[in-house]
Amino acid sequence: MPEKKSIYRRKVNFYETDAQGVVHHSNYFRYFEEARGYLLEELGYPYHKMHNEGLYVVLVEGNIRIKRPIVYQDTFDIEISLSIENEYSLSFGYKIYINNTIHSTGYTKHCITKNTKLIKIPEFLVNLIND
Amino acid sequence: MPEKKSIYRRKVNFYETDAQGVVHHSNYFRYFEEARGYLLEELGYPYHKMHNEGLYVVLVEGNIRIKRPIVYQDTFDIEISLSIENEYSLSFGYKIYINNTIHSTGYTKHCITKNTKLIKIPEFLVNLIND
Amino acid sequence: MPEKKSIYRRKVNFYETDAQGVVHHSNYFRYFEEARGYLLEELGYPYHKMHNEGLYVVLVEGNIRIKRPIVYQDTFDIEISLSIENEYSLSFGYKIYINNTIHSTGYTKHCITKNTKLIKIPEFLVNLIND
Amino acid sequence: MPEKKSIYRRKVNFYETDAQGVVHHSNYFRYFEEARGYLLEELGYPYHKMHNEGLYVVLVEGNIRIKRPIVYQDTFDIEISLSIENEYSLSFGYKIYINNTIHSTGYTKHCITKNTKLIKIPEFLVNLIND
Repeated sequence: MPEKKSIYRRKVNFYETDAQGVVHHSNYFRYFEEARGYLLEELGYPYHKMHNEGLYVVLVEGNIRIKRPIVYQDTFDIEISLSIENEYSLSFGYKIYINNTIHSTGYTKHCITKNTKLIKIPEFLVNLIND
Repeated sequence: MPEKKSIYRRKVNFYETDAQGVVHHSNYFRYFEEARGYLLEELGYPYHKMHNEGLYVVLVEGNIRIKRPIVYQDTFDIEISLSIENEYSLSFGYKIYINNTIHSTGYTKHCITKNTKLIKIPEFLVNLIND
Repeated sequence: MPEKKSIYRRKVNFYETDAQGVVHHSNYFRYFEEARGYLLEELGYPYHKMHNEGLYVVLVEGNIRIKRPIVYQDTFDIEISLSIENEYSLSFGYKIYINNTIHSTGYTKHCITKNTKLIKIPEFLVNLIND
Repeated sequence: MPEKKSIYRRKVNFYETDAQGVVHHSNYFRYFEEARGYLLEELGYPYHKMHNEGLYVVLVEGNIRIKRPIVYQDTFDIEISLSIENEYSLSFGYKIYINNTIHSTGYTKHCITKNTKLIKIPEFLVNLIND
C-alpha cells in the first residue's frame, strides 16, 4: 500500500503539562494535528490551500497509546505516515520517539468534506500519496 | 453607572492544571468566557441568539491578577459584572472567590461586530443593561 | 462482567470550538476525564482522595469515534461505564448523546500507580465496582 | 532601565482557533509563555534549570490587547522584552507582529518562588538582565 512518511520535531510547552507533571493526553491529538499539517505541506498541499477550495479533512476516529510519558521541555519526534484506507477514508499513523526510544503510538482516520458534504478523496490527493 | 451582576460557580478540572500543580493562568480567560455566557443567558440574551443575528462580542483587551492559586477540584465563584464603557465598548469585571477569600480579579473589554464590521452597541443590549 | 454506569451532562463552551465551527476532537478526551471524575465521585471515591494516598489513574490508551459533530452551546450527555479489564487495567466506555441521538463513542484504558510505581488495582476499587 | 529583548517566531496551529475563525484570546498567554521560555534559554537560563533548583517564575498579572486577529497558519513574531520592576517583580512586554504590522500587545508580571516561598529575584537573574 503506497504511503507517505515524514518526521515532525516538537518541543513540549509548559502549558501542555498537567498536575501529574507530564503532558496531558489530550495534547497528543494536538501534536498529531500539527504533524498532519507538516506532512501535507511537505506534499505540496497545505491545509489553507484546501480550505480555500472548501475542502476539509474531518477526523472521524482518533487513537493514542502512551507507553512512556513526555515532560516539559522534552524534544520528541513524530514519525507520521499517510495512507489511503478506501475511496472515502484517509488514515495517518504516528510514532513518538525521544532519541530512539518509542514513547507513544497513535492513529487517526479522516474523511473529506467539500462545502460540508462528504466527498470521495480528491484525485490530486490520491496522486500525491501514490507518487 | 448601571451594571448587571451575577455569580457563576465552577469546579476546576484536572486538565486545567499544569506541572506547577495549579490552574494554568490561560484558563482564567476561559472561565471568564463561561461566566460571560452565563450572565448574557441570565439577561435573556444568550450568545447563540447573537450569533444567529450575525453579532459577535469580540474581545479587545483582557487582564488577570492572580493573588492566590486555585487547584484541582476547587470549587470557586466568579462574581461577574457587565457595564457599558462607551458607545462602542462593553466591559466585564470578574472576582474569583473561594468561600469568602478572593483569589483573583480580572476584566475584559469588548466591541461588537455585525457580519465582521464594527458597530455601536445595539440598543437592545444597552436596554438590557440599563433595566 | 460487573460494571458501574452513570450519566454526565455537559454544555459546550465557546473556547472548545475550532475554526471548522465544531468542538475540536482533542476536547472529547477532556470531557471524558470530567465524566470519569464524576463517576468516581458518585462511587464515593473522588480523585483528590486518591491523590492524597499517592494513587494516580494513568491513561494508557484513548480512543474516540466521532459520528456527528457537536457545536457551541450544545448540551450533551455522556453515558459512562467503568469495568475491570484485568488485575492491572481499568477501562471506561463513553457514549455521547444529544437527546436520543448518538454523536460519539470512545473508550480509555488506565493503570494505577502509587508513588509513581505501577500497582494492581486496589481492592477497595475492585469492591466499589463489584458492589 | 536595563532590559533584554528577543524575537520569537511562531505559526498558528489549527487547534488554537475558535468558531469565530481566529486564534482564541486565551492562547495569547500560551504564546507569551513560549516566548518567555525562549528568551530565558537565550539568556542561558532555561526554565528546567530553574525548576531543578526549586525556583519557579509565577505569573501574578497578565494583560493582552488585541488590535487585529491572527488566523490559522499565520506566522507571527513576538518581540519580547524582560525588565526588573523591583526586588520582587519581573515584567515581560510582548508585541505581536506579522511582517511590520502590529497585531497585539501584552505584558505579564511575575514573582519568583523557591520551594513555594516568595523570594527576591536571585542575583544571577538580575545580573543576566543587567549584562
